Amino acid sequence: MFDFSTAFPNSQKTYIDGPQGVRVPMREIALEGGASSIRVYDPSGPQDLDVSRGLPKLREPWVKTRSGCVTQLHYARKGEITPEMEFIAIREGLPAEFVRDEVARRRAIIPSNIRHLELEPMIIGRNFLVKINANIGNSAVSSSIEEEVEKLRWATLWGADTVMDLSTGKNIHETREWIIRNSPVPIGTVPIYQALEKVGGRPEDLTWEIYRDTLIEQCEQGVDYFTVHAGVLLRYIPMTARRVTGIVSRGGSIMAKWCLAHHQENFTYTHFRDICDIMRAYDVSFSLGDGLRPGSIADANDEAQFAELKTQGELNRIAWEFDVQVMNEGPGHIPMHLIKENMEKQLEWCEEAPFYTLGPLTTDIAPGYDHITSAIGAAMIGWYGTAMLCYVTPKEHLGLPDKDDVKAGVIAYKIAAHAADLAKGHPRARAWDDALSKARFEFRWQDQFNLALDPVTARAFHDETLPADGAKVAHFCSMCGPKFCSMELTQQVREYAKQGMEEKSLEFRKASQIYVKI
Amino acid sequence: MFDFSTAFPNSQKTYIDGPQGVRVPMREIALEGGASSIRVYDPSGPQDLDVSRGLPKLREPWVKTRSGCVTQLHYARKGEITPEMEFIAIREGLPAEFVRDEVARRRAIIPSNIRHLELEPMIIGRNFLVKINANIGNSAVSSSIEEEVEKLRWATLWGADTVMDLSTGKNIHETREWIIRNSPVPIGTVPIYQALEKVGGRPEDLTWEIYRDTLIEQCEQGVDYFTVHAGVLLRYIPMTARRVTGIVSRGGSIMAKWCLAHHQENFTYTHFRDICDIMRAYDVSFSLGDGLRPGSIADANDEAQFAELKTQGELNRIAWEFDVQVMNEGPGHIPMHLIKENMEKQLEWCEEAPFYTLGPLTTDIAPGYDHITSAIGAAMIGWYGTAMLCYVTPKEHLGLPDKDDVKAGVIAYKIAAHAADLAKGHPRARAWDDALSKARFEFRWQDQFNLALDPVTARAFHDETLPADGAKVAHFCSMCGPKFCSMELTQQVREYAKQGMEEKSLEFRKASQIYVKI
Repeated sequence: MFDFSTAFPNSQKTYIDGPQGVRVPMREIALEGGASSIRVYDPSGPQDLDVSRGLPKLREPWVKTRSGCVTQLHYARKGEITPEMEFIAIREGLPAEFVRDEVARRRAIIPSNIRHLELEPMIIGRNFLVKINANIGNSAVSSSIEEEVEKLRWATLWGADTVMDLSTGKNIHETREWIIRNSPVPIGTVPIYQALEKVGGRPEDLTWEIYRDTLIEQCEQGVDYFTVHAGVLLRYIPMTARRVTGIVSRGGSIMAKWCLAHHQENFTYTHFRDICDIMRAYDVSFSLGDGLRPGSIADANDEAQFAELKTQGELNRIAWEFDVQVMNEGPGHIPMHLIKENMEKQLEWCEEAPFYTLGPLTTDIAPGYDHITSAIGAAMIGWYGTAMLCYVTPKEHLGLPDKDDVKAGVIAYKIAAHAADLAKGHPRARAWDDALSKARFEFRWQDQFNLALDPVTARAFHDETLPADGAKVAHFCSMCGPKFCSMELTQQVREYAKQGMEEKSLEFRKASQIYVKI
Repeated sequence: MFDFSTAFPNSQKTYIDGPQGVRVPMREIALEGGASSIRVYDPSGPQDLDVSRGLPKLREPWVKTRSGCVTQLHYARKGEITPEMEFIAIREGLPAEFVRDEVARRRAIIPSNIRHLELEPMIIGRNFLVKINANIGNSAVSSSIEEEVEKLRWATLWGADTVMDLSTGKNIHETREWIIRNSPVPIGTVPIYQALEKVGGRPEDLTWEIYRDTLIEQCEQGVDYFTVHAGVLLRYIPMTARRVTGIVSRGGSIMAKWCLAHHQENFTYTHFRDICDIMRAYDVSFSLGDGLRPGSIADANDEAQFAELKTQGELNRIAWEFDVQVMNEGPGHIPMHLIKENMEKQLEWCEEAPFYTLGPLTTDIAPGYDHITSAIGAAMIGWYGTAMLCYVTPKEHLGLPDKDDVKAGVIAYKIAAHAADLAKGHPRARAWDDALSKARFEFRWQDQFNLALDPVTARAFHDETLPADGAKVAHFCSMCGPKFCSMELTQQVREYAKQGMEEKSLEFRKASQIYVKI
């Protein structure tokens, strides 16, 4: 079992103090050979604490004086920079006023229930670092509370920026309580799962009142964002009947079944303003669900999917009337050439609200490897402007992820998110790549390992063929062996180059026109 | 240890007979519940044979009557459809005349040394299925001949379309002999590695004569394509001096060192026509190396890289004068937003010759996971038009891949290639995804596993939480449990829909304008 210090050798937590008493954690990676240390974004939270007591209540002094409308959007629109915004500004390396402005423009959200005092604030928006979400949660078939809290800590250790608790079995309330009290990152839920549990798993027995009470219960506990499938309208359901995989969202299919059983419109749609009222009181953000997302390549970008997306845009505008923060969930299974259309339509119809996609998976043929089929789509849609990527683990479609799967999913998505940050030209993204590449070129093996997303795995892979300590300073590795190492040869080339190679080459270029036909 | 039958349960090899006596292998996956079986492309070759005797000499009757210029390009230009082209036409599901025409236009190559009689012909070109290459090879530090032959069989079992033998240690000749005699797929090499071995590993001691003799030796053995770093020109070398990672190609750095030591132009460039003469006699294809490819995000798309690419285009034209087939190697490490430029410049400067890229890796920060960082770039550049993707394993930058790494690399690249085929709209690509998704939706678990790229892993992941045989026909899985399964709910939705739901919905839509604000 890893904790922070064993997972990240030569790293330590550093805190940067800022205005309004904020202290922002970063992970500082110390390097060898005189190279400067590098600081990276760190969502892993306080370490080595007693899980039964929960994390320190960091936000208590910030929220205790708040009253009236307490949403970050409300403050942002008034021109007020909250401690949450100050915290984020330091975390992202951007001015606090920029953070406020992006929230006010509704291009970014800060999911931060005033009852989640343990939260280290973070922001979701396309002009910030791309974020990733990890899903955890027990199901009727398997797993315990302790396991879920351990998965939460584990997911944030490797870099999850938010965690969704998708528990569907027994003890939903208690599991969630433990998770929130131990979570430094925003917690999202799909409240309809718990509501359904309360009616014995029969969608047709759901009522608005039961759902409303569930929302309030979860608001009180400190859930930071709710997936609400309010865009699954009765008239869209027949559009899914001829699909290859119909409705694959659990929440979407629960609502669809309710609508059909009662022949009434989705109650989360008809009561949407009531829901806004509740969420506004706690600053819970909407994650408007895509209950009709495609579950296969065949169903991508179809009528049902886009009908719901348009309705999401309509609902965004209502949420904003209430100063409630909102992001939109997106697909799903989408072949590469159809990904961009998703982003473009979302930007247009949803007026630039943050987009939050599940993958998308770019092919259906690799169950067991869907962290990879989807990391491809996630990286691309992140580059196009998606603000947060919901991870997919190797167990997707097959079973409940265990700890290894959670880690595999988080790492694949950290890769996708970082690749997107690079492609978008985020000013802080490149430094990490450059530090690692420089270490690699200079044969600083320990630094190369310590700078990796997963240092222990990188070191273990190296040691499989060259375990000796001497190999850690060797100017070669097992791939090429000592005589062939290209990096070593290049260093010699560079030496030559220093010795006036450039002038010699110029002379040579004049003399060798015979070979040069360009 | 897996072989064909254990790796692919419910699959069998089927042979399709065609003109000129060709018999084309496909993998046929039998399905349950009355669903039609599906045939997929299969490079795994004949099974259960004695490795010490090699594979059957399939092409012997085709090549024994050939004389004069024996290249596929030569025949294609003459308007002649070879048995190799007939074989490929069936394999790809396209007319033989189309195959011939693409080769004649030099948009596709059929790497097929007339001495590699065991070869099952395949084609590399952007109007065909995207192919993947797996690198194997012992090094001075580790691994044996038996291991390398085993890796070859292993790589093709999982789907490698070509294999490069990059051996650099002892017994290079003998290792290669075993590999070729047991390979149903084209074998590529980098001849400068063996030439260097002959001069004790000192690049400055290389000569044209030693290199030429090595080429002939490898032509005689049956190597199908050679990586030749003829585009690494003396005047380009100083362009790499200020790079973060200099020259990272082994072949490139060997040539660079030779050029600097002698202060002469690259002998593979000055003798390029002599090389063409040799390769023409055996129909060995060029894979023009990118010795100056970027080894880090920082060095992507720089002056040195593009200078060499332009020279590759120049060399293509010379190869074509000799009727020698040619493809161009590409990078490397490229952030997503710079990938397309690589493809566009290659198409323009190299006149649509097939492009063959290594990844590209889209970030440098994840050693240990570079099969994923690079599958992202590979899928994208495959979509843009790259014909073959050279795999990257999890051990890249760290050590020599073992069998698990080879499999991980091949599967990640099969995903990338198939995702690219889907995005390009290849007419045969979608059927596989649709068959799997349909099986998933209909709870045909065994079919879902058997249709997966890696059936055994998919089944094992499912069985971790629901091992009972009954669960294989259950209408749920461990992710949601029996009460919440969205797919099960959707099937019920579909039942409702059949019962006149559409008309009811239309009525409802008229009556419910109050909720509908679009």
